[in-house]
Amino acid sequence: MPEKVLIYSRFPKAMMLRIGERYDLMDAAGKPPNEMFTPDQLAGVRAMITAGGTPLGAGMMDMLPALQAIVCYGTGYDGVDLAAAASRKIVVGNSPAANAASVADIAMTLMLAVTRRLLPADDYVRSGNWSAAKPSPLMRPQPGNPGRRIGVYGMGEIGRRIAARAAAFEMDVAYTSRSKHDVPYRYVPSLEALVEWCSVLMIAVRAGADTHHVIDAAMMKKLGPDGYLVNISRGSVIDQAALVAALADKTIAGAGLDVYEKEPHAPDALTAFPNVVLTPHVGGHTIDSHIAMQDCVMANLDAFFAGKPLPHPVT
Amino acid sequence: MPEKVLIYSRFPKAMMLRIGERYDLMDAAGKPPNEMFTPDQLAGVRAMITAGGTPLGAGMMDMLPALQAIVCYGTGYDGVDLAAAASRKIVVGNSPAANAASVADIAMTLMLAVTRRLLPADDYVRSGNWSAAKPSPLMRPQPGNPGRRIGVYGMGEIGRRIAARAAAFEMDVAYTSRSKHDVPYRYVPSLEALVEWCSVLMIAVRAGADTHHVIDAAMMKKLGPDGYLVNISRGSVIDQAALVAALADKTIAGAGLDVYEKEPHAPDALTAFPNVVLTPHVGGHTIDSHIAMQDCVMANLDAFFAGKPLPHPVT
Repeated sequence: MPEKVLIYSRFPKAMMLRIGERYDLMDAAGKPPNEMFTPDQLAGVRAMITAGGTPLGAGMMDMLPALQAIVCYGTGYDGVDLAAAASRKIVVGNSPAANAASVADIAMTLMLAVTRRLLPADDYVRSGNWSAAKPSPLMRPQPGNPGRRIGVYGMGEIGRRIAARAAAFEMDVAYTSRSKHDVPYRYVPSLEALVEWCSVLMIAVRAGADTHHVIDAAMMKKLGPDGYLVNISRGSVIDQAALVAALADKTIAGAGLDVYEKEPHAPDALTAFPNVVLTPHVGGHTIDSHIAMQDCVMANLDAFFAGKPLPHPVT
Repeated sequence: MPEKVLIYSRFPKAMMLRIGERYDLMDAAGKPPNEMFTPDQLAGVRAMITAGGTPLGAGMMDMLPALQAIVCYGTGYDGVDLAAAASRKIVVGNSPAANAASVADIAMTLMLAVTRRLLPADDYVRSGNWSAAKPSPLMRPQPGNPGRRIGVYGMGEIGRRIAARAAAFEMDVAYTSRSKHDVPYRYVPSLEALVEWCSVLMIAVRAGADTHHVIDAAMMKKLGPDGYLVNISRGSVIDQAALVAALADKTIAGAGLDVYEKEPHAPDALTAFPNVVLTPHVGGHTIDSHIAMQDCVMANLDAFFAGKPLPHPVT
């Protein structure tokens, strides 16, 4: 008999096909598991798959008395109450680096699109305004990348790949992180100093209580009227209301966002701006990235059910 | 008295401000100069500024009996009849490499946007369909960049910068060119073989009679249903009608275009596709790129009027 695994978050079915070939999946599809399954059914669950950003606290864990492993699909685990898991000796695993290239690519896509005004440019062609030679103030030349200062906040697997890509665009790359890494980019010890210095701020930091709303109104003022903000980490890192205000009064030049405070949702106040580029949390959303994340999930589950340590543990 | 310089193509006034401080500009603004100026006025013109893509043949040169220098604003000079110029000993100059980084950046922007479906993604967020959890077939995961085969057609200043950027995206880079260059990318001697091999074709070749419509229906068939075409060179390199047909019957997956057969114009048949990203020939359109191009134009004009060889000649 295949082992039972609870699917806690809402995932497209295609993402679970391979995992379902090896395990007996109980899909709660984003709903509270006790509404979908009986206590008896839940009592047999020893492992679950979740999306790292989905809140998963002690109360939920208590509904699963036999739970011993939480496996995150993706690199994030910010929604998981690690202390509560530890107190019950539940192991937690993730998919480190599996989606890093894919997320770094979306970061660069958003940066290039917003700084080169790609959406207004495409609209200028499609609307016929270009053919009609209608002048467009949005089509005025913008600063280019060579020499442009890009600050990478967070130097994990994704931050490294963003920095490598930015360097190839001849940009001046610096970063901040809790500690200096062995990377060929300038280290700036404080986020404030990095934001003062840069004209593009790339948020690639791991989300958590310590990074909640660290990008606030004061930081956006430091970024300045020529500055762009790109976030591919978690919406919680930015004070989204302050971002809307900063875009409205031109405190910053624009933003590229793949993540939002409440997902799936981008407020009307944000979607109304022409100088933002918005993607629906698709950073890790490539075929290769999904295969790599599924490899990590399966390796974690296989090891757990074999009584071995997780190969990709959250530490 | 400042020397007279004819402005032949239509340029935004801002581009000519610095040049106008040193020279007496006679701006034909894209109209036939003999409609804008008297034969006497034209008789005094020894140098002119043109956009390389604007047709400039022997007949036009004959309206300017004193003409001795044609200075192209930008890297291209495909519109200039070089044989006619040579037969009159008119020197021709351009702005090599001045816009290369800017154009390479637009090439990458188009590639990333079309392969990651940026425009449908932004629309999915703005329309509210994401919030409403409406399924969208366009949002299905796509292939990512690591390991993706990119073929660069042309290994000049722009092609090199495209290749360097693509390598940082962990792509598998190969190129074709008239001859092998001293670059760390695989050389493929024939365009056909490169197109067969790659899944993204980047057109960065210099336009001319030998490259007219080389990307035709047969080439698009070789590129195949997973293949993307990006053109930042000249519209003439692609058979645009064949491209529209290839997009319509899904012979290729999509296209990113900054240049078109007739500019400023993109036909309705092209602008109707969701799987294209279209920019209005803004590849070289950054502030730094314009400054560098103006530096080249001024250096060429200054040298010419001082009786010296052009520092940036077309050879």
